[in-house]
Amino acid sequence: MDVHVRIEGRGDRADRIYRQLRDAIRDGRLRRGERLPATRDLAAQLAVSRTTVTVAYERLTAEGYLAARVGAGTYVAASPAGPRRSEARDARTAARPAAVWRSIRDPLWTEPRPIAYDFSVGMPDPALFPIEQWRRLVAGELRGGILRSAHYADPSGLKRLREALARHLGVARSVDATADDILIASGAQQAFDLVGRVLIEPGDVVAVEDPGYPPVRQLFETLGARVVPVPVDEQGIRVDLLPRDARLVYVTPSHQFPTGAVLSLDRRTALLAWASANDAVILEDDYDSEYRFADRPLDPLQSLDREGRVVYVGTFSKTMLPALRLGFLVAPPSLMPALRSAKRLTDWHNDYLTQAAMARFVDSGGFARHVRQATKAYGARQRRIVEQVGALLGDRMHVVPSVAGLHVCVVPVEGSGAFDADRVVDDAAASGVAVQSLGLFTVARPAAEGLLLGFGSIAPDDVPDGLRLLARAIARSAHAQPG
Amino acid sequence: MDVHVRIEGRGDRADRIYRQLRDAIRDGRLRRGERLPATRDLAAQLAVSRTTVTVAYERLTAEGYLAARVGAGTYVAASPAGPRRSEARDARTAARPAAVWRSIRDPLWTEPRPIAYDFSVGMPDPALFPIEQWRRLVAGELRGGILRSAHYADPSGLKRLREALARHLGVARSVDATADDILIASGAQQAFDLVGRVLIEPGDVVAVEDPGYPPVRQLFETLGARVVPVPVDEQGIRVDLLPRDARLVYVTPSHQFPTGAVLSLDRRTALLAWASANDAVILEDDYDSEYRFADRPLDPLQSLDREGRVVYVGTFSKTMLPALRLGFLVAPPSLMPALRSAKRLTDWHNDYLTQAAMARFVDSGGFARHVRQATKAYGARQRRIVEQVGALLGDRMHVVPSVAGLHVCVVPVEGSGAFDADRVVDDAAASGVAVQSLGLFTVARPAAEGLLLGFGSIAPDDVPDGLRLLARAIARSAHAQPG
Repeated sequence: MDVHVRIEGRGDRADRIYRQLRDAIRDGRLRRGERLPATRDLAAQLAVSRTTVTVAYERLTAEGYLAARVGAGTYVAASPAGPRRSEARDARTAARPAAVWRSIRDPLWTEPRPIAYDFSVGMPDPALFPIEQWRRLVAGELRGGILRSAHYADPSGLKRLREALARHLGVARSVDATADDILIASGAQQAFDLVGRVLIEPGDVVAVEDPGYPPVRQLFETLGARVVPVPVDEQGIRVDLLPRDARLVYVTPSHQFPTGAVLSLDRRTALLAWASANDAVILEDDYDSEYRFADRPLDPLQSLDREGRVVYVGTFSKTMLPALRLGFLVAPPSLMPALRSAKRLTDWHNDYLTQAAMARFVDSGGFARHVRQATKAYGARQRRIVEQVGALLGDRMHVVPSVAGLHVCVVPVEGSGAFDADRVVDDAAASGVAVQSLGLFTVARPAAEGLLLGFGSIAPDDVPDGLRLLARAIARSAHAQPG
Repeated sequence: MDVHVRIEGRGDRADRIYRQLRDAIRDGRLRRGERLPATRDLAAQLAVSRTTVTVAYERLTAEGYLAARVGAGTYVAASPAGPRRSEARDARTAARPAAVWRSIRDPLWTEPRPIAYDFSVGMPDPALFPIEQWRRLVAGELRGGILRSAHYADPSGLKRLREALARHLGVARSVDATADDILIASGAQQAFDLVGRVLIEPGDVVAVEDPGYPPVRQLFETLGARVVPVPVDEQGIRVDLLPRDARLVYVTPSHQFPTGAVLSLDRRTALLAWASANDAVILEDDYDSEYRFADRPLDPLQSLDREGRVVYVGTFSKTMLPALRLGFLVAPPSLMPALRSAKRLTDWHNDYLTQAAMARFVDSGGFARHVRQATKAYGARQRRIVEQVGALLGDRMHVVPSVAGLHVCVVPVEGSGAFDADRVVDDAAASGVAVQSLGLFTVARPAAEGLLLGFGSIAPDDVPDGLRLLARAIARSAHAQPG
């Protein structure tokens, strides 16, 4: 054998002999049937004790790399296994995902860069998160032994959180639920996933809003659904345009994402009647309407539903922080066993510590207080934006009326000339202003033109300067157009 | 109109008028077209201010329940919507889950009762959880602002946890991975789910071990797979019996669940060759072999894989606690984009706080130290059990050799007479001893007879008494048999 075994340096010498011989067998430098030096000889050659070599040989023998034959010494017993994994990373042999996943783009994740004027959508202001209270709640639960008491647990989630939520939702959102109707999920996205899994069979039609929320559309596609986008107007989803064979309809009635429209009572009634006539299920996403700046909300579809056809989904991502990964669904009893099974088979249940801390926060009234305070702060930002859009952009753009949430949608005033949202977005970005185009959330082409202005990440005092820069980008875009 | 509006008691009077009228419209006591009393009259009748009634009417009008006609007063504009949801819970109209979910049992969750001698499987000892260190780590991360810095984040998981894990896995488990090859999941179960989602198309064949882990079998069934159980012997899964068309093979090579067998090196090589020849993917579940009591482990399939066909799954549920919901997978680069997309669409990412605390625990060496200490404790329990099974049950049962994990499997000695595991389990339960039957984890019938003895929940000093009671139950079972 011509394998060079080195044992320079420190550390477990038997282990290093073992590894070098093993690697030599694996990559074929030592071949099946070759005889190894006697332990005495290798020990002398390497200037180690014979025991050291024996330990290495014994381990290799125990693992099947070597075999000892009485009177004939020790032989290689295993065959090489081809190139190392790291060398085969792009091999044509590598495993491939199923077809549907090849069409889903995996956006390369980059750490968020600081932006001077950040009007992007969907993130609450971390500065408003009640960090001190949360720290005390988490510390209290850890001291109280929440983790030690926890076995693999109820897939529905921690009972005291569900009880607290049932009370809170009844008062704050007119949602009609007991703790047994609630399932805690890892954010609203997991709630959508669980609903999709228990309802969708490959080829089923699912209706979504257009413009709408892309991660839901993509999710249902990966579950094998045929996803049909349905237009939205100032009263919300066009119920008259729903595909007759839809099994599931996803809507954001309190604050349509992203236009901000509220589903009118007429449409609510029509949607429920439609679902009844077509034996469909409605998935009601109430993602940010806890932040409400004006008149009282319409009752959710969930509380208008008489037939057990509505699943209501809420989240703490906007009222608290997305990093907590805490959301929930309220489902009719007919779906609950399947939803619990889906949660159990997906990830068993949510983590205990966050659930327990949140239960205490909701129960103590701290959560409602926090939402009230944050609503004041966001309301001021929203007013500021509406006012400044009027002042700086009034001749070109107007704000779609909206009374809740963390963003507004601005659209071109009719007859005010050409508007190219993508160009505006790029141009604004170059001036340090992050905005998103409505078209990003639209399937239909040509997409409705418009911009989304989020106020979760921007300081109120930065609003005027940010919008001034945006106004300039819009003006430049108009001048660059032929029309 | 003959609707009785009551406003006794405290609270917002306009709100109570609103609610009573709304409910009357909803349940049909007030019908579309009916005229309401003038605000002045209703105010007088109820002895409230006219403003109070006006506020209620305006809200009902805004929501579409009422309409005002100039000169003709206020009319009901909406129709009733059938019985209240809570009254319709069992209605035949209620939503139903897809067919596959109707076959999955949803075990009713009950709070775990205290058991005198708890040999049940799968739960580590909460008393060994390093609660003080964990408290400090969590508090430190909260102080460090981990939550506030967190936007919707990388679906792969927190980078410093993946980096720490890559180093740890290389040293502790010979897993060949960089941070980019790792994805953090909510426990091993979610890792299985993600792998199943990106690989399985409806009708695909998936091979699992038998006896094996039921939640994985059920999960793959709900994903539309045809799940084929493959027998296990003392060398692990019978590679020669794998179905030729399997797309995915799920195995527990380090410590077969539940028999405890180790997949031999020959079988490992054969399994990898089989996967290569059949273009299949291997899902390697290494759920508890960090607790190792004897000789060094064989290398995982992941590090023997040259073709990028193995996905390795690990978890902190056994080394730390299931309540943390923290696990991970190591996948070939060809699957990573799809797995990241699946994670993103399923629940975006894991919660930040737990990931950050764990990153620090692994990086500081605290985790490795904890595992070493816990291994000593569990090793002592395992020895105690093996020794006592020999002493108390040696003529009837023997322990399947096992060098890792948190449970052992005991099977009847050949020729020692009849043995009815289910009867033993029931009988033992009546004496305060919790054990599980091997048959519970077996698909093939008749199931292999045997019992599982977990040592995550039992105090070492309770082992002899518990096994004495178990021995009596076994003796009674034998006498009750005809043979």
